[in-house]
Amino acid sequence: MTTSDPTSFSAEEYFATQPPPPTLEHDISGVRDFVARQAKEGRKVVLVTSGGTTVPLELNVVRFLDNFSAGTRGATSAEYFLKAGYAVIFMHRQFSLQPYSRHYSHSTNPFLDFLEIEPSADGTISPPAICVTRNMRQDLLEVLTAYKSVHAAETLHTMTFVTVNDYLWLLRAVTQELCVLGKKSMYYLAAAVSDFFLPRQKMSEHKIQSGKGSLHIEMDQVPKILKPMVVEWTKGEGFIVSFKLETDGQLLVPKARAALDRYGHQVVIGNDLHRRKFEVVFVSRKSLPPLPPGVEPEPLPEQELEDPISTTFVETWIRIPVPTSSPNPATNQVKEIEEDIVAELVRRHERWVEEAR
Amino acid sequence: MTTSDPTSFSAEEYFATQPPPPTLEHDISGVRDFVARQAKEGRKVVLVTSGGTTVPLELNVVRFLDNFSAGTRGATSAEYFLKAGYAVIFMHRQFSLQPYSRHYSHSTNPFLDFLEIEPSADGTISPPAICVTRNMRQDLLEVLTAYKSVHAAETLHTMTFVTVNDYLWLLRAVTQELCVLGKKSMYYLAAAVSDFFLPRQKMSEHKIQSGKGSLHIEMDQVPKILKPMVVEWTKGEGFIVSFKLETDGQLLVPKARAALDRYGHQVVIGNDLHRRKFEVVFVSRKSLPPLPPGVEPEPLPEQELEDPISTTFVETWIRIPVPTSSPNPATNQVKEIEEDIVAELVRRHERWVEEAR
Repeated sequence: MTTSDPTSFSAEEYFATQPPPPTLEHDISGVRDFVARQAKEGRKVVLVTSGGTTVPLELNVVRFLDNFSAGTRGATSAEYFLKAGYAVIFMHRQFSLQPYSRHYSHSTNPFLDFLEIEPSADGTISPPAICVTRNMRQDLLEVLTAYKSVHAAETLHTMTFVTVNDYLWLLRAVTQELCVLGKKSMYYLAAAVSDFFLPRQKMSEHKIQSGKGSLHIEMDQVPKILKPMVVEWTKGEGFIVSFKLETDGQLLVPKARAALDRYGHQVVIGNDLHRRKFEVVFVSRKSLPPLPPGVEPEPLPEQELEDPISTTFVETWIRIPVPTSSPNPATNQVKEIEEDIVAELVRRHERWVEEAR
Repeated sequence: MTTSDPTSFSAEEYFATQPPPPTLEHDISGVRDFVARQAKEGRKVVLVTSGGTTVPLELNVVRFLDNFSAGTRGATSAEYFLKAGYAVIFMHRQFSLQPYSRHYSHSTNPFLDFLEIEPSADGTISPPAICVTRNMRQDLLEVLTAYKSVHAAETLHTMTFVTVNDYLWLLRAVTQELCVLGKKSMYYLAAAVSDFFLPRQKMSEHKIQSGKGSLHIEMDQVPKILKPMVVEWTKGEGFIVSFKLETDGQLLVPKARAALDRYGHQVVIGNDLHRRKFEVVFVSRKSLPPLPPGVEPEPLPEQELEDPISTTFVETWIRIPVPTSSPNPATNQVKEIEEDIVAELVRRHERWVEEAR
């Protein structure tokens, strides 16, 4: 695999040349109503994006390029945001993990295994009752209670995407709707977004025949949308958190800093593919304390002038004990790093809302 | 996208150069026990493959090429094979649809929606019972009863794959285990297998940096394994059914015939991407009735000599009314085409088992 001469779309060119998904208007109308309701109730709202985007290789999709992401980070975080009192717009890859149901994956914890058919005392109840087995009641009770509570309060709005094109159009439209909430909106961009895509003009209509020989795929870079998101779509008011996933741990902090510099958003959460369940790093700009009135800023010490990058960023590492999947005997809970990630973000967002512009 | 000079592996070269999945021995040992049990009970066994295979682009998988397949065909067919008394080895793409749980996708029919917490009469039952809502009891009863029955009889053996490499190694190993059952083994190859892959030697270790410029991916053809499967792995005794999915309906029958000719197996089921839920075509070789003893075969009439292809194949179209997802009021069942596909295959397999070699 090689990279070559740039064929890059700006965000503007992208939206001018690629068609919106057919359900866009309908999807956004639902978001608009949801946001209006939260605004009325004074609630903070977080957009959580989750799962991988695809790049179809043909118009009649048989093959596609995909980004590895079960959606664990997003689905788990959404639960903790809801618990913390946020309203959540959960924009996820269709069929990837969702809050609450994520605990009962058909592959690893199939719910059919813990249902039993109750024999009725006199045999006349038809159809018979079907209930959760005794040993699973506590587990289900907690999840089901939270689920029902969120549904009753209508604080969770769920949307799906499949392709990177769906994702980009949706992200822009949802962000523009959330703009009315000003600083009370947070953006938790945990989705694994394709770096490369096939512009519609380059896609073939029918399934590419395998025939003989090898297959060459030439793809263009997906436009970086964080900059327009910060500057135009949220007008600098949204609290924007992006993620960096790397397989080479050395690249995490440098790339996170570079992204903050380039895009001007609030936080980059860096994670190493192999350590992400128990360790992440928050990278943000160092905020200077406000000066008392009448005091002039001191000139920067020479060391800081020589090394401008390191003076402006701060890293906060969040770690939990390496999960062994043995629950805490007192609570029967397995500790999840997302609890701490969300707690930290809730604190920082609170400060963001409070501080003067 | 373009195709170029062939870089093609034979099946033999493939297995000689690509590493087996680490869980292969463990997986096959489970299959061996399962097959031995079915042999003892005289049961027919069908290997159902289902879902798409992936081609990872990096050794630390961040991106991969995938084949579109929810696994509906395979998961649904497996249920009907089980109902018909077959034992099923269900070899599917991890997290794709499975028999029974397929009815309760977390996206389209989440089970948390039809559980309720039962208030206990005296408030002392803790934790309280959690049961299926009254209106869903009948639905669940049917699926749950079939599920429990299959689990009690141990007639369903489930295995997973992710990459095309996993798939090829598993397919060969499982087929070799099923060989002991001779003609009683059927192979229902519904998985969407990658046509192209990246040999391990061409894969990069770390996530490919997007940097600047476009991305070029050059891939090699996946070896065709149907031929060795028919000739070597099953020694001509297995009843092998492969699928062809096309987006251009005109290609269905010609390609199906070409495959039968090239590989020598029993049935190709052709389906058009947009019509596959209500229409498929079975393509097979026309079987001539046995001649009475002492009678010589007549010379072929001239028309058949000119058009040899059409004289040796027969097409059987299976169609159901276009599904509208309104259940039959009498049975509350939605008709599924897999019911008819499986019924037809069960009949043909019965003839295969009975006919003299």
